[in-house]
This record gives sequence, structure tokens and C-alpha cells, in this order.
Amino acid sequence: MKKIITISRAFGSGGHTIGREVAKRLNIPCYDKELVDKVAEESGFHADFIEEAGEYAPVTNSFLFNIAVSPNPMAMMNTMSMADQLFVCQTNVIRRLADEGPCVIIGRCADYILKDREDCLHVFIHADMAHRAERIVRLYGETRQSPEKRLTDKDNKRRVYYKHYTNRNWGEAQNYHVCLNSGLVGVEKCADIIVDIAKMYE
Amino acid sequence: MKKIITISRAFGSGGHTIGREVAKRLNIPCYDKELVDKVAEESGFHADFIEEAGEYAPVTNSFLFNIAVSPNPMAMMNTMSMADQLFVCQTNVIRRLADEGPCVIIGRCADYILKDREDCLHVFIHADMAHRAERIVRLYGETRQSPEKRLTDKDNKRRVYYKHYTNRNWGEAQNYHVCLNSGLVGVEKCADIIVDIAKMYE
Repeated sequence: MKKIITISRAFGSGGHTIGREVAKRLNIPCYDKELVDKVAEESGFHADFIEEAGEYAPVTNSFLFNIAVSPNPMAMMNTMSMADQLFVCQTNVIRRLADEGPCVIIGRCADYILKDREDCLHVFIHADMAHRAERIVRLYGETRQSPEKRLTDKDNKRRVYYKHYTNRNWGEAQNYHVCLNSGLVGVEKCADIIVDIAKMYE
Repeated sequence: MKKIITISRAFGSGGHTIGREVAKRLNIPCYDKELVDKVAEESGFHADFIEEAGEYAPVTNSFLFNIAVSPNPMAMMNTMSMADQLFVCQTNVIRRLADEGPCVIIGRCADYILKDREDCLHVFIHADMAHRAERIVRLYGETRQSPEKRLTDKDNKRRVYYKHYTNRNWGEAQNYHVCLNSGLVGVEKCADIIVDIAKMYE
């Protein structure tokens, strides 16, 4: 079985719901907010900061460039931005969770962090703007911003965050094994497909 | 049922094979080389030229810009490059085939050309470099270029062609309903998934 399933997703497309459903059907843990909490414990950062900073990439030199050129990566930690330090903590937590056993991991560039493992299934969930706008208003309520603006802002932040930490393009099909438009395919069918593929390897 | 299935694909990832299998299972026509032949008949271009030019975007101003600003698009045809004229022919053929009834259409920016139809399922097939390299040598034999170089060149040409005619990024998940890594998922399972989703709408 593909033991580790990473779910990357556009805000409002149901990635979290799909991830939870997949985890339930495979009887494995699903790490989302739980991941945040674990990182909080490990790093001493407050959970709310992690939730927030987990979406913003620092406006600094490339994270990967800094790591690559540093003669002493451990000493680098002292000069990294807090957001970058947080990312290093998240990376360690994600790797450890993957080593512990089968699980679903939502977001956090987990597809990139675990890219060299053979036992992962990397999934990207998205949907068109109208579907996502209806969904976020229904689930999270109205805000001063229009839902379309909220979605565009969130997408841009995730794109920048992903690029900063992975040097890859968020949402590019070749980064994932399966990409699904949940508006067309539906949350249940997305979970069916993911579970089906994961189990192919039993 | 989603009547029209467009298959966009990275060279060597089995998009053609998957498209044919899907068409067989749904008992509908599959247009690939047949599409080329239809375009040849319509346009007076020789089939070999179409096969070749179908991959190269002209090094000219944006096709879409030219169409958009022309006061007389029909007159524009006389000043377009041959490749652009060919694209207009292909567009007309693809639209007509979609109007005629359920079918699978492989390549040719069909996902973009038919983007405003509600009855389409747009699929993108890809696989990692090693899988595709092995496959193209097995299916098409060795050439002077390394398989990796052939694949990279083909990918780049398709990327440029797609960008030129659609102003979208080839392989970006949000352009398609389903993207599948055929190396991991397998050709049979890819066909299963596509047929399954297409039939959801019966």
C-alpha cells in the first residue's frame, strides 16, 4: 500500500474533508491541525503563530539557497527568519510522522518534503472559483472581502510559500501523482479514487 | 455522461494508449491521427506538415492578441502564419467533432478549445522521466538523441505551443479535471478512473 498520502489543496476545494475521509477509510491517522499542534509542542512556537506563518513565506533570500550554501546548517538556524525556522521544525515533524507509519498529511509542502520516499501518494485537490466561493461562504461565513478575493489571496500565498520552500510551482500536475477537480468529481469520488490507488500496492 | 473526453499528455506517458482504451470501453470514437487526417482534408495541408506543425508554435506575436485586435478576423487569416492558420482549422474540426457526439480527443489544445462546454472531461496524463524514457525507447526505438533529451525537447515544444494558443500553462492542474501519473497509476487504472468519472454523469 502507498502508506503516506499527502494532500495539497487549493483553499475551499475540500482537501481537508477528502483527507479526513481517506484516513477514515484506511483506518490511519490524518495530520492537519494535529500537525500544527505537534509542531507547536516541538518548537515552542504558539499554535496560532504556526497556523498563520504556515501560509506566509518570508520576504528574504531563497530558503533553499541559504541552506545549500551554508557551511554549517545547524548554525544557520540562528540566523534564519522565524518562518524559516518553523519550516525546518515542520519538516522534521513530517519526516518523523511518515517514519512512524501510514498516515494522511494535509498541506505543509509534505509532498516535497517526502518526495524521495517510494511509499507515498501525492495528491492535489482543486476546484473552480465559483464552486470554492460557494463552499467557503457556506462553511466559514461571509467576511468583508468577497469570497473570490479571499480565494485569490489564499492561492497566491500558497503559491509563494510553496515556491519559496520547494522551488517548484504549486499546482503543477507533474509534482503530484493525482490531481482532482473536487467540484466536478465530488468529495466522495475523490476519496474513492485516492483509496483505490493507495490500495493497489497492497 | 461527460460526452467529450480530452486527453492532454506528456510525450511517452501513454496518453494515446489510455485515450484509445477509454474510447473502446465507452464505445465512442477516438480522434488522434484521425484528427490530423480530417484537418488535412479540410485545409489542404499535407498530413505530414500537420503532424509536424502541430507541435511548433510560430515565433510571432501572440496568436490570441492578433485575433483579438483584428477588426476582421476572417481577413486576418490571409496574414496569419501557416501554423496559426492550421490551428484555426484544427479548432473548427475539434468543435465540429464535439458537436457530432461523444468522443475522445487527444492533444491539439482540445481542452482549451472546448473549455466552455459543460459536457467535457479534461484529462492530463504524465509520468516521471525514467518511466517515459524507458517507454519511448521500447515503443519508438533509439535515436541519436538520448531519450531524456527527446522528452525534454518534446515537453518544451508542447509547453510553448500550448502557451501560444491558449495563454495558459501546459500541465497546470487547474486547467484539467483529472491529472494522473500513468507510471504510478498504470494505464489500465487510468482508463478505469476516467471511464468511471465520465459515467458518473449518466
